[in-house]
Amino acid sequence: MTHRPGQLHLNAFLMSSGHHEASWRLPESDPSSVSTNIAFLQQLALTAERGRLDSIFFADGPAQGRDVGRRPSGTLEPTVVLAAIAAVTSRIGLIATASTTYNDPYNLARRFASVDHISGGRAGWNIVTTAFGEAARNFGLADQPSHRERYERAAEFLEVSLKLWDSWEADAEVGDKAAGVWGDSSKVHAIGHVGEHFSVAGALTTPRSPQGRPLLVQAGSSEDGKDFAAQYAEAVFTAQQTLADAQEFYADLKRRAVEWGRDPATVLVLPGIVPVIGATEAEAREKEDELDRLIKPEYARVELAKTLRVHPDDLPLDRELPADLPSEDEIEGAKSRYTLVVNLARREHLTVRQLIGRLGGGRGHRTFSGTAEQVADAIQDWYDHGAADGFNIMPAVLPSGLDDFVDQVVPILVDRGLFRTEYTGTTLREHYGLAVPENRWTAARTAEIAR
Amino acid sequence: MTHRPGQLHLNAFLMSSGHHEASWRLPESDPSSVSTNIAFLQQLALTAERGRLDSIFFADGPAQGRDVGRRPSGTLEPTVVLAAIAAVTSRIGLIATASTTYNDPYNLARRFASVDHISGGRAGWNIVTTAFGEAARNFGLADQPSHRERYERAAEFLEVSLKLWDSWEADAEVGDKAAGVWGDSSKVHAIGHVGEHFSVAGALTTPRSPQGRPLLVQAGSSEDGKDFAAQYAEAVFTAQQTLADAQEFYADLKRRAVEWGRDPATVLVLPGIVPVIGATEAEAREKEDELDRLIKPEYARVELAKTLRVHPDDLPLDRELPADLPSEDEIEGAKSRYTLVVNLARREHLTVRQLIGRLGGGRGHRTFSGTAEQVADAIQDWYDHGAADGFNIMPAVLPSGLDDFVDQVVPILVDRGLFRTEYTGTTLREHYGLAVPENRWTAARTAEIAR
Repeated sequence: MTHRPGQLHLNAFLMSSGHHEASWRLPESDPSSVSTNIAFLQQLALTAERGRLDSIFFADGPAQGRDVGRRPSGTLEPTVVLAAIAAVTSRIGLIATASTTYNDPYNLARRFASVDHISGGRAGWNIVTTAFGEAARNFGLADQPSHRERYERAAEFLEVSLKLWDSWEADAEVGDKAAGVWGDSSKVHAIGHVGEHFSVAGALTTPRSPQGRPLLVQAGSSEDGKDFAAQYAEAVFTAQQTLADAQEFYADLKRRAVEWGRDPATVLVLPGIVPVIGATEAEAREKEDELDRLIKPEYARVELAKTLRVHPDDLPLDRELPADLPSEDEIEGAKSRYTLVVNLARREHLTVRQLIGRLGGGRGHRTFSGTAEQVADAIQDWYDHGAADGFNIMPAVLPSGLDDFVDQVVPILVDRGLFRTEYTGTTLREHYGLAVPENRWTAARTAEIAR
Repeated sequence: MTHRPGQLHLNAFLMSSGHHEASWRLPESDPSSVSTNIAFLQQLALTAERGRLDSIFFADGPAQGRDVGRRPSGTLEPTVVLAAIAAVTSRIGLIATASTTYNDPYNLARRFASVDHISGGRAGWNIVTTAFGEAARNFGLADQPSHRERYERAAEFLEVSLKLWDSWEADAEVGDKAAGVWGDSSKVHAIGHVGEHFSVAGALTTPRSPQGRPLLVQAGSSEDGKDFAAQYAEAVFTAQQTLADAQEFYADLKRRAVEWGRDPATVLVLPGIVPVIGATEAEAREKEDELDRLIKPEYARVELAKTLRVHPDDLPLDRELPADLPSEDEIEGAKSRYTLVVNLARREHLTVRQLIGRLGGGRGHRTFSGTAEQVADAIQDWYDHGAADGFNIMPAVLPSGLDDFVDQVVPILVDRGLFRTEYTGTTLREHYGLAVPENRWTAARTAEIAR
């Protein structure tokens, strides 16, 4: 698979003080403001826009699952954050995570359509099924539904959402003042959905948005997750540690997309990378080491034990992982994350302490320390070798890590002809080279006329 | 009941091209942008802020219930709209309607806490139970739950929300970089709520917001609605046509608040007024007549028939309402609106056509046409005579009606010493003279120490 020149895509994954769990302990971080200060988040978005990145992205989950002692834990709901960022930016794409397990499709489809209107066509939805029991217990359930059940609900949730986003045709607004006719009711369609999980009768409240619908993003890499992505997603975030694994994932996902009858070029694959940038390689490594030294392993071990479904006492810090861990089939949580962590530890014979260091940087994503030139090389290597259509940039430290990437790495990628010199469009779909989807009702009418 | 000087409160109720249903047909209106153009809404908010108004407000319902032919029908979800407005304003309070019947408390409490953070403490929630069947059918129900059931759910929804907003104490964020302790986990409380409608285990994801919680607003005037308002609401929007009715409502609500053990001064009553302002009284009346002439009665009659639970054919345009209408007890929808409409028609012996004209202006709210001086008199009259703590200003036409109010009526109210000359605070609670509620956990700890 070859890419057209200048078509590399870059998303900035923004998380509090940065993706390294100890980043908040650095002098540059203001620990009281990283989680709830909108000015801080708006400034990061403006930095990403200065670098002509495709988009920014916020993760999310409806539960306070973390140990608040360990690291910045408070989060704002991301769709309202994106609306506040939309108001101070004009180009950067705006992607928020939201759960199909703990939302109603009518409310959520409407909110994303609204963000798409507010941003002039820059909204994206990272579709997750939410893999932790704490969330279930905030919504009246004793525990989370099974992996399979969550994905079945997600598929129907998507079908309902797609119907809702098509419920207003683009030209439904008439605005005929003289005749006193504001809208053409024959172009606003009650969807009449009756399914296994949802019954939704009406049309959306919200006229068709600039992108037709938000960009659909997905990030689960389990078998169910990959099939879901191949069917629906237009961009896929993935955690891959080696070129070979990333190539395999990339080829597999594109093949699955073809099986669903889709053009594989319309499913963009963006592996995560946690860049730590220094003036020299040694300086970058020292930055990474400094961060790792600031990790408190007693916190991290509790989380690792949870991921691995073992007791923390079964994970002595200076030994490798126990031999008798559950298989991925037994995991009802984040399956692909589980396998990635176990494989990383086994492949590199890491002790628990070393594994915690690696995960503290990128929680399973690839950490890369080096000069700006070396980071650009690492990106180009995967891009040129069929492992990526772009990257999910996860700065270890914010804001400096994003500034470093935008000011030092982006110019190199531009010089190499890999990345845009200016935005050529105003919508997120235009940045990603994806068309506005056809409205099913408009298409049916056009086909009717052509017959 | 006497007010302190300069304590009149003013909220601007913003709705598409204005509250008169034919407003979009005037030359000033851009019918394609009034429902979804965020720049238009941001400009209205800036106008309200220029007038030092307390707040702006958006109604909402999760269903496309209107006839799109009749008037601008598309709406954006208001919490994201408020976030986008927060980003371009600094003082104006921001109130959004959201339904307790068609939301989950964890998601909604979190979103309002987020808007409160984003706006620096300017969020308000107009709590509604949503009185139309179309909404139920977008959420898997065959019809809406009964009035009583909706209010029972609403009360528990509020209790859960209040627990969630208290789940983080204000000083839970520690940020001790040296010790590596970000938060004090003893000050983040899992709520463990188990009730009739909801089970919610955890703490909110979101640290305590600047106002502690959003300002709580209510607008239903049925018996259930008034009791709910007396128990929870800090501001109450109400539709009242006469001074006597408004005085009775005002006294009744304050008395009910006392019965709930509350200081009646902490429950502000704001009747709606639809001002149509002209340089002379004749000019104002001509403006109102022009608008009424632009109403298409065949649309409005269908809606009136729905409100009255009769067939449109039973409402000949030039006759009074039929004698045999249902009693309020039989109405499961918006009870108080029903009674107001019927009483208005009977009291003034209006024909259906005349009633439609009156409702087209304010849908039951008091329409007042006159000079700026006369509008100020009308406001002062109710304010001075125990009928209002302030007003819900519902311009018949936007944007000009809000500009007229801010530029012509507000200066008169200021000159009379009724209204502020400058904002004295930055939060919505400060504008309304209401304290930040005490956190229950912090209060308990303080009481423990004092013992």
